[in-house]
Amino acid sequence: MVFGTGPSAGEALVSHPEVPLVSFTGSTATGKHIAQVTAPMFKKLSLEMGGKNAAVVFSDCDLDACVNTLKRSSFVNQGQVCLCTSRIFVQRPIYETFLEKFVDIAKEIKVGCPFSQEVFMGALNSKPHLEKVKKYVKYAVEDGGSVLCGEGVDLLILPEDNKQGYFMRPTIITGLDDNSRCMQEEIFGPVTCVVPFDTEEEVVKRANNSNFGLCASVWTSNVGIAHRMAHKLKVGTVWTNCWLVRDLNMPFGGVKASGIGREGTQDSMEFYTEAKTICTKIA
Amino acid sequence: MVFGTGPSAGEALVSHPEVPLVSFTGSTATGKHIAQVTAPMFKKLSLEMGGKNAAVVFSDCDLDACVNTLKRSSFVNQGQVCLCTSRIFVQRPIYETFLEKFVDIAKEIKVGCPFSQEVFMGALNSKPHLEKVKKYVKYAVEDGGSVLCGEGVDLLILPEDNKQGYFMRPTIITGLDDNSRCMQEEIFGPVTCVVPFDTEEEVVKRANNSNFGLCASVWTSNVGIAHRMAHKLKVGTVWTNCWLVRDLNMPFGGVKASGIGREGTQDSMEFYTEAKTICTKIA
Amino acid sequence: MVFGTGPSAGEALVSHPEVPLVSFTGSTATGKHIAQVTAPMFKKLSLEMGGKNAAVVFSDCDLDACVNTLKRSSFVNQGQVCLCTSRIFVQRPIYETFLEKFVDIAKEIKVGCPFSQEVFMGALNSKPHLEKVKKYVKYAVEDGGSVLCGEGVDLLILPEDNKQGYFMRPTIITGLDDNSRCMQEEIFGPVTCVVPFDTEEEVVKRANNSNFGLCASVWTSNVGIAHRMAHKLKVGTVWTNCWLVRDLNMPFGGVKASGIGREGTQDSMEFYTEAKTICTKIA
Amino acid sequence: MVFGTGPSAGEALVSHPEVPLVSFTGSTATGKHIAQVTAPMFKKLSLEMGGKNAAVVFSDCDLDACVNTLKRSSFVNQGQVCLCTSRIFVQRPIYETFLEKFVDIAKEIKVGCPFSQEVFMGALNSKPHLEKVKKYVKYAVEDGGSVLCGEGVDLLILPEDNKQGYFMRPTIITGLDDNSRCMQEEIFGPVTCVVPFDTEEEVVKRANNSNFGLCASVWTSNVGIAHRMAHKLKVGTVWTNCWLVRDLNMPFGGVKASGIGREGTQDSMEFYTEAKTICTKIA
Repeated sequence: MVFGTGPSAGEALVSHPEVPLVSFTGSTATGKHIAQVTAPMFKKLSLEMGGKNAAVVFSDCDLDACVNTLKRSSFVNQGQVCLCTSRIFVQRPIYETFLEKFVDIAKEIKVGCPFSQEVFMGALNSKPHLEKVKKYVKYAVEDGGSVLCGEGVDLLILPEDNKQGYFMRPTIITGLDDNSRCMQEEIFGPVTCVVPFDTEEEVVKRANNSNFGLCASVWTSNVGIAHRMAHKLKVGTVWTNCWLVRDLNMPFGGVKASGIGREGTQDSMEFYTEAKTICTKIA
Repeated sequence: MVFGTGPSAGEALVSHPEVPLVSFTGSTATGKHIAQVTAPMFKKLSLEMGGKNAAVVFSDCDLDACVNTLKRSSFVNQGQVCLCTSRIFVQRPIYETFLEKFVDIAKEIKVGCPFSQEVFMGALNSKPHLEKVKKYVKYAVEDGGSVLCGEGVDLLILPEDNKQGYFMRPTIITGLDDNSRCMQEEIFGPVTCVVPFDTEEEVVKRANNSNFGLCASVWTSNVGIAHRMAHKLKVGTVWTNCWLVRDLNMPFGGVKASGIGREGTQDSMEFYTEAKTICTKIA
Repeated sequence: MVFGTGPSAGEALVSHPEVPLVSFTGSTATGKHIAQVTAPMFKKLSLEMGGKNAAVVFSDCDLDACVNTLKRSSFVNQGQVCLCTSRIFVQRPIYETFLEKFVDIAKEIKVGCPFSQEVFMGALNSKPHLEKVKKYVKYAVEDGGSVLCGEGVDLLILPEDNKQGYFMRPTIITGLDDNSRCMQEEIFGPVTCVVPFDTEEEVVKRANNSNFGLCASVWTSNVGIAHRMAHKLKVGTVWTNCWLVRDLNMPFGGVKASGIGREGTQDSMEFYTEAKTICTKIA
Repeated sequence: MVFGTGPSAGEALVSHPEVPLVSFTGSTATGKHIAQVTAPMFKKLSLEMGGKNAAVVFSDCDLDACVNTLKRSSFVNQGQVCLCTSRIFVQRPIYETFLEKFVDIAKEIKVGCPFSQEVFMGALNSKPHLEKVKKYVKYAVEDGGSVLCGEGVDLLILPEDNKQGYFMRPTIITGLDDNSRCMQEEIFGPVTCVVPFDTEEEVVKRANNSNFGLCASVWTSNVGIAHRMAHKLKVGTVWTNCWLVRDLNMPFGGVKASGIGREGTQDSMEFYTEAKTICTKIA
């Protein structure tokens, strides 16, 4: 076990010629650096990196269950989970209803010291990270978006002894173009964008319009939609009517800029070993 | 199907952002270039590259069968096969006998136009490649080696109409240090080096003293030696008392600078597909 | 290849001590005989036998697609397919509508020489078999059922030169108890029984109330119902919104009196071989 | 967990229609009874039954290691292990030497209360079983065999308080025909038969001349002999230069009258579950 920061411990490990493989979980930027450092040494690589994960909400879904789970998938751990949802596509007939329920539930979220039972969201990881996340809310406004709740809209009321913390309120943005910064770049904070869609065919294209491909959730009661969407979304994991249900035996990992390789019982066994073919003459 | 040379077709393919994976068979230098080009795009990579493959010949082996196969494994296709043997470790009690038989058999090899039934070796791939291979024989002499037969020793007698071809005779070199150029670098021509060894433990270390790790062959009649060696050699494939026996169901590929990934029925199916985990709420 | 009838060729094969395994597709009665003959010789057995396969039709399904497929699954090959549907459970809100459409489509079926393009059903396998199937229609009436179409109800009109054939019309029966003979015993003819149900929980129990467990089909547009039913039905194969879609790589076979073992690429490879563990001392 | 004897608890379990599978470890006679009882109910069966396991000792083996292990494989737990060796085929050039060493080591075995560190063999399971085992020694003499040590030859000296126990001395018999009772029937006691052989081809046939097929051990230093024998012996497990080395991930079980099915991580998971194929229409 070697403890240390990326520039010291991490760099030394990944660039050492006697380290034959690297499994990394972290940002796509760091993953890219590791891939470039290790490429000329032909190291085996398993990268679990960022996401810009979509939720696709069809009109026929169980809306209350959906809203409750998307609150969690958007804001749990202050949105600092690679699997968090940050793009929500809602079918037009229920778009306004969804927004109303989702904003209501987000406004009720208590922010503060997470030792308290009532608090759902704590502080962000660091001051620079908080500033980065807030900057994305500014980008959203510059790009024509509307902030329905959270940063710059709701008052952040904190107890006296939390006032120095890196807190922000859960933030929901609408009105953004699919190619805008907040719809394309990983924010890794409590910021999620909601946009309407009309048809299954259209939303497949739009949800797949991302450099990332980690996971997605699909919300529908229809068996055909559920499985067609699961089939067509270019991501490593699709959750239907649920989110973050994991079993360590199942392959876990992303495609495109979200990663290389899969983790899980069988996949990890294969990654951490080398197959050797031994052929012995017996005749 | 896209046909073309590496700099034009190959480069365009491997650097294109919409090509999600690259399977390459060729030189380690080109493989390294591909790994570096594709690294920032997180492409899946399967590389089958060079080798500096050892044969380990124990005193108790069937010497005639061994010599016959090593003739083939050293000189077939003019040594231009990634799996060809180019380092032969012979246990000291049979070292002289082995050399005598092996040089005899090499000297009998007919070089020329391979349309003739009697001819075992044809021409090398190109003039620059022939020159590169011959240069290695010079390096061997500079590094203290003795050329027992072939280049610079035996007369290359060719029919009139082959005289413009890129031919050379099968060349056996002894007396080289394990770290010399001919014992470390891939020559990819009809040149093989023979050195003596004393113990199993010693030869494991020396055979593994290579940047490459594609394959090896072990020659012994002893069941313990055969399996211990197969276990300890750091390569992708070990052949015991045989060479180049392949079944497309078996994993094929190398370790270290010889490659990343494995080919074969199961491995190829996994490489050319992406596992997707679909989790549907049923309760 | 040995050709012959069961009593002569079959019996000789299955009872021969040098035949180490038996794979049998046929009736449960014959399968039981084979199991008893081979038991004291410890032969490996793969049995694909009878079925009493249910279709479960929920109110929210695509009714036209369902009726069209159940026509085929009930009457194709005159119902002489182990996978044929013979118990149809229809949710009460659509029970009458289903029956109307299903009887209509059955009445339109042309019976006769199958060389004609318009003919959907040919003759049954033999005179005794035709008599057996007709006897079950009599049992149905004795057991309180109503014959909605087919045997004893519709006129069987045949061209002159088919009149000696073992034909009967597609027969649909309602009003039977789940434990009646036609709902419990394999008829292996163009006879299917339709009964209503109310809840998912109820229909799981009733569909599983059978000695057989070969396959089932589930008709619903709901993703939760589809997967819960697939999970709870005690059969080897569940088709959702389809029937008889097979891929030879997938495990095929039944449970309970429908069979032992599975066929398919991987399963068959395992059945027709014996795993041998070879443990060699290498240290 | 149900505890009880075979006739009461066992019979009730295996014959109960709601018990869908039976995994049994015990005698071939009881296994045969279970197979017959369960056959008409199509239960899945895994049977681990008796053996008449051969050791094949080639002239080039490590004789001391071999004799030490065969002492254990013949007499451990008083020979009451299904995997115990009871037929030892020794290549003629070392036959006399082997016998001398093997009889010497058997004669040194201490019999008595196994709580004592020096004691290698305790009492047999029961009085009837002891009598059955002793009867086989009589059969051996009737069939022309010579008892080299043990029952009827060596004095069984026991401490005062063991005198009522069901003890017998390790017994080695030679001179028997391959088809004699002691060479064909499972004795399940401390009795082992030694016979000479000449060629590999001959010993394959003779070792396979058994209704049983549980395991075998092969003793040779030659890699070709080791693997050819492992390939040709019709048993579930072959140990080369070792015995009773097990890993629970490896398939374990026998062929012919020794069993049906395999145990071990993967095999047991498959045996105790039923594969279900679920096919859902998505297009």
